[in-house]
Amino acid sequence: MTDDDLTASPSQSVTAGIVVIGDEILSGRTKDTNAGYIAEYLTEHGIEACEIRMVPDVTSMIVEAVDTLRARYTYVFTTGGIGPTHDDITADAIATAFGVGIEIDQRAVAMLRQRYPEMDLTPARLRMARIPHGAELIENTVSGAPGFQIGNVFVMAGVPKIMQGMLGGIGPRLRSGRKILSDSVTALLPEGKIAEPLSEIAKTFPDVSIGSYPHFDGEGFRTQIVMRSRDADRIATVKTAVEAAIRDLG
Amino acid sequence: MTDDDLTASPSQSVTAGIVVIGDEILSGRTKDTNAGYIAEYLTEHGIEACEIRMVPDVTSMIVEAVDTLRARYTYVFTTGGIGPTHDDITADAIATAFGVGIEIDQRAVAMLRQRYPEMDLTPARLRMARIPHGAELIENTVSGAPGFQIGNVFVMAGVPKIMQGMLGGIGPRLRSGRKILSDSVTALLPEGKIAEPLSEIAKTFPDVSIGSYPHFDGEGFRTQIVMRSRDADRIATVKTAVEAAIRDLG
Repeated sequence: MTDDDLTASPSQSVTAGIVVIGDEILSGRTKDTNAGYIAEYLTEHGIEACEIRMVPDVTSMIVEAVDTLRARYTYVFTTGGIGPTHDDITADAIATAFGVGIEIDQRAVAMLRQRYPEMDLTPARLRMARIPHGAELIENTVSGAPGFQIGNVFVMAGVPKIMQGMLGGIGPRLRSGRKILSDSVTALLPEGKIAEPLSEIAKTFPDVSIGSYPHFDGEGFRTQIVMRSRDADRIATVKTAVEAAIRDLG
Repeated sequence: MTDDDLTASPSQSVTAGIVVIGDEILSGRTKDTNAGYIAEYLTEHGIEACEIRMVPDVTSMIVEAVDTLRARYTYVFTTGGIGPTHDDITADAIATAFGVGIEIDQRAVAMLRQRYPEMDLTPARLRMARIPHGAELIENTVSGAPGFQIGNVFVMAGVPKIMQGMLGGIGPRLRSGRKILSDSVTALLPEGKIAEPLSEIAKTFPDVSIGSYPHFDGEGFRTQIVMRSRDADRIATVKTAVEAAIRDLG
């Protein structure tokens, strides 16, 4: 066991779904980077992201995605749609999903007051203090308006800087599984050349997940082979086998 | 009507779902760029992307995502999992979703033979010629191995360069809706300041979709306001109203 395992529950895997909310993602105007950031963060913390959904600012679609994933996984993380404008409907949609009321939350108002002089607390900014009943707040160190947690769902901002701060704050609250370790080897070969020995290796070591990722580096096709397991020794064994297979191919 | 509308069916909207397939996306190791690229391409072609799902290399999850979205939208586009290795299971999963058989397709073999000298047509490469019954092939100008279309589902490679070539080839086959036009204004203001006049404008012009996107540019919070509609005149009217509202705020 490594240091990472001190808070782990090795016998139980911890899973997550991610919901990215916003018309601008579906139109392609904004290229989402939050899902990949969250996925990587979760992997580093021993939590397995199992599914990502990206939906527009439409209540029924937010509710469907959140309800499906919160029933399926340990945690759900959402980004987007909690700002002050008319198209920010995530908090209301989450309240609908949980069947609870929503109103201005005095703890959230206090956070906003701390951030903005009183004269600036417009009704629009107060809209950002509308929090579903029973939710815990998630601190926003960048711009004041909090996210929130209700049940196993964490509702975060869409602006990457703010989202990243919120996620960093949430981290310690999360139960973490035994960390999945990985290592990789890059072959200067197209995938088609390495596929057969790789398939044999995968059959021989069914407890290690072996992924094969081709890319084109401008000169030729390369293949990165990634070994993933919770056991470092097993990864090392498979890595040796993969390196030998690559050598055999010249 | 603009030139873009010549091939359009203005009365009917054309919709799409996108499914990104691959363990490496969920682990965060690979940051997906395909979904955003496809979404932008579709918007430019008058097709509305309504939902994006990202799932691991797990048959049941691929089937669920594809089956749900193909029933819901005009088109579905998938990326990833059609290479030669043991973890490439997309073609089989699609065959399962459609309830059809899958075997080596001689048209696909011909495409591969054209690309590779005969001695290089390994069983692994032949695996890339396994195509569900009834599918049409999608040409791969980069590395030979084709994608395919079955029903309203287009199955493409995960390597961005290859996927982009395939999408460009598919384009002419797609029915296109009347193009959604957009324009934008950037306010040197945080979202909270502009939210109320913006909400009024949104109520006054319910036929124009108005999105508000805050970002932090290092010096302060800015808000980009995006107007979207199929009618250029309506966009211009709303833009004038938004610019006036920003001026009024100083």
